[in-house]
Amino acid sequence: MEKLRKIGFAKLIPLEEALENLLSRIKCNKMETIEVSSSLGRVLANDIMAPIDIPPFDRAAMDGYAINAEDSFGASPKNPKQVKLIGTIDIGQKSEIKVQAGTAIRISTGAALPLGADAVIKIEDTDIDNNNVTLFNSVVPGKNVSKKGEDIKKGQKVLNSGIKIGPEHVALLASLGITKIKVTKLPIVSIFTTGDELLELGYPLEKNKIYNSNLYMIENLVKKYGGSLHFKETLKDDKDLIIERLNKSIVNSDLVIFTGGTSVGKKDLLPEIMQENGEVLAHGLAIRPGSPILIAIIKNKPVFCLPGTPVAAYVCFLRIVGPAISKMLGLDKLDPRVEVFARMERDVPVSSLGYINFLRVKLEKLKDGYVAIPIRLKGSGIISSLTNSDGIVEIPTNEEGLKKDSIVKVKLHP
Amino acid sequence: MEKLRKIGFAKLIPLEEALENLLSRIKCNKMETIEVSSSLGRVLANDIMAPIDIPPFDRAAMDGYAINAEDSFGASPKNPKQVKLIGTIDIGQKSEIKVQAGTAIRISTGAALPLGADAVIKIEDTDIDNNNVTLFNSVVPGKNVSKKGEDIKKGQKVLNSGIKIGPEHVALLASLGITKIKVTKLPIVSIFTTGDELLELGYPLEKNKIYNSNLYMIENLVKKYGGSLHFKETLKDDKDLIIERLNKSIVNSDLVIFTGGTSVGKKDLLPEIMQENGEVLAHGLAIRPGSPILIAIIKNKPVFCLPGTPVAAYVCFLRIVGPAISKMLGLDKLDPRVEVFARMERDVPVSSLGYINFLRVKLEKLKDGYVAIPIRLKGSGIISSLTNSDGIVEIPTNEEGLKKDSIVKVKLHP
Repeated sequence: MEKLRKIGFAKLIPLEEALENLLSRIKCNKMETIEVSSSLGRVLANDIMAPIDIPPFDRAAMDGYAINAEDSFGASPKNPKQVKLIGTIDIGQKSEIKVQAGTAIRISTGAALPLGADAVIKIEDTDIDNNNVTLFNSVVPGKNVSKKGEDIKKGQKVLNSGIKIGPEHVALLASLGITKIKVTKLPIVSIFTTGDELLELGYPLEKNKIYNSNLYMIENLVKKYGGSLHFKETLKDDKDLIIERLNKSIVNSDLVIFTGGTSVGKKDLLPEIMQENGEVLAHGLAIRPGSPILIAIIKNKPVFCLPGTPVAAYVCFLRIVGPAISKMLGLDKLDPRVEVFARMERDVPVSSLGYINFLRVKLEKLKDGYVAIPIRLKGSGIISSLTNSDGIVEIPTNEEGLKKDSIVKVKLHP
Repeated sequence: MEKLRKIGFAKLIPLEEALENLLSRIKCNKMETIEVSSSLGRVLANDIMAPIDIPPFDRAAMDGYAINAEDSFGASPKNPKQVKLIGTIDIGQKSEIKVQAGTAIRISTGAALPLGADAVIKIEDTDIDNNNVTLFNSVVPGKNVSKKGEDIKKGQKVLNSGIKIGPEHVALLASLGITKIKVTKLPIVSIFTTGDELLELGYPLEKNKIYNSNLYMIENLVKKYGGSLHFKETLKDDKDLIIERLNKSIVNSDLVIFTGGTSVGKKDLLPEIMQENGEVLAHGLAIRPGSPILIAIIKNKPVFCLPGTPVAAYVCFLRIVGPAISKMLGLDKLDPRVEVFARMERDVPVSSLGYINFLRVKLEKLKDGYVAIPIRLKGSGIISSLTNSDGIVEIPTNEEGLKKDSIVKVKLHP
């Protein structure tokens, strides 16, 4: 142990290997039934089949006259045809009048097509004088009619489980008359930041202390990723206290996040605690920043010990904790960040081979694509490298860097 | 009026002209002070200047020994140097011991550099036997030290007003010890869907009626865009009722949204109501779908009458209502949607010149870029064209369509 503390990690584990191992240990949360009206941002737990046709009936796609198409055949501005107006159907109205040869019914967009009619001629292509409607154009059967089931057929699958519900999905569900849906339960998360150096917000700055930013950052990342906060606290580097809080919080949480004390320094208590209280899946990943991360399973639940330096904690959250939350949510896409392609503005050499390097970049939008401008780094603690950047480029292990003008994928900040 | 009802809009207004006119009439909301800890998603109303240095003191960037760099000069694995261990500084600890020539203090990453020391030698480059520390490497002054103010200097501008606050901004603010910030007040929104054909969720489907999906869609879009819902209701096509609700809701709202009844049909009451009760900025825009939109100013507040067909309402919200909300929020980017570049999978002809056409596309991610696959359209009412797509391509007015392999901008669904 003293040897390990002195020389660092015996062996760094590849990110993908650790992630695969972790995700294989995580199950999707149970489902619950909620109202469609308050489902924004939740994850659909079941496929949705249409309970009705959309449109639910044949309807006019234009304002005009419902006619027998045949009555318009051959009509043109120079050779108009005439039909008799026998009624009006407004949107939402039910009408029993039947269109017969030589007759027409005035119809509004969205109104149900009356019996006997098979087309709608646009109002612009007609004229009216008393009850005589002049047709200046010919229409084929079905013209300007939205057929029942044309958009969606009853019984058809309309949404896949695993999607995150947006306004457009709510609209679709509502248009099908669906009021309740099954979604996955929100992952319940407890967060602890550890470190004798941490000062809580609102206290005056003391020499040698720094303000605790990780608690707020992680809490808000959890919110963004759809987790529900159970408990949060800042703890001193006190082994008994940390164990007590871990055991207490894990009972009612789906996952627990610690930050700080994960490395191999004297006060880095978490590795020991995790080893003694559960199974350590990985300690030390081949990523920069973020290598001191520890992933454990305790009482069948994932516990993450993120490095205390904010950018390292941020990167570890996005790449490891976030996907774990997504898996619990049953999301079809475990890393929900949007990816854009960009051309590197300049060469970026990599000093540490053997690691995935997380490069923060700012994007500039040109006429036909993005340019990625690397943010100059001074260390993994530097939060301004996040607030000054738009996203992260991952430089693969064993690549010596990125070349100017090469195309890279940028994962935008969530 | 009867003429207008029959032939449609006399003249369609270009989108950008209407938008510019609208936005010139909208002011940024007043500000309010809130806790940083609950500021996620809010919009910063003031620039933020750093009240302290980050780091707030010189600190070790590595685990190792704080030394006089000079004591290491010339040291190598073959020609090591020795210094005397005189103490330990842990992170968060305050130490009064001074490092003098020939001495070293054991130091943890993040701990304050002791007086007299000007560098940290990594633990891996040393060995220890009793209190004799052997240095196998030479370090320059400043090595492995994060200098006070290295990341952020006191007084420096760190965040611009107008940004939407994400987890990384919360982290930055917290690290600076900032507890409260000024943000813009949330725009208060009332939503009315109108139409005799609308059936509320939970009722059995009636012939000729359709379920009201717009109320839910617009409500959730307002949430996504950072608005706060004041009031929502579905109204029959009843002029007195609509006027009463308009007058009542506008008092306590920053903006009011109607859907339905905006066109030139018989039951389209909104244009008349808006004309009689305020100023109509635009009625009929050169966009497809969405052309029947009406924009009015009533009691100095914007009122939007969106078309009743869901996709048209959706597009009008994203392109017109959303930017209005963003302007009230003081957002630096009025259209918050992410844009990606993509190559068109096939030709898309445009039948209606003179309009901006909103093409829904699905994205496919290849190795070096996206491909945009157009969704086949049947009408603007078809919500599945939204749920099946990832975003929207705007085909400019008077372009005859998009060519296969041309590069387009896709605005992702919010």
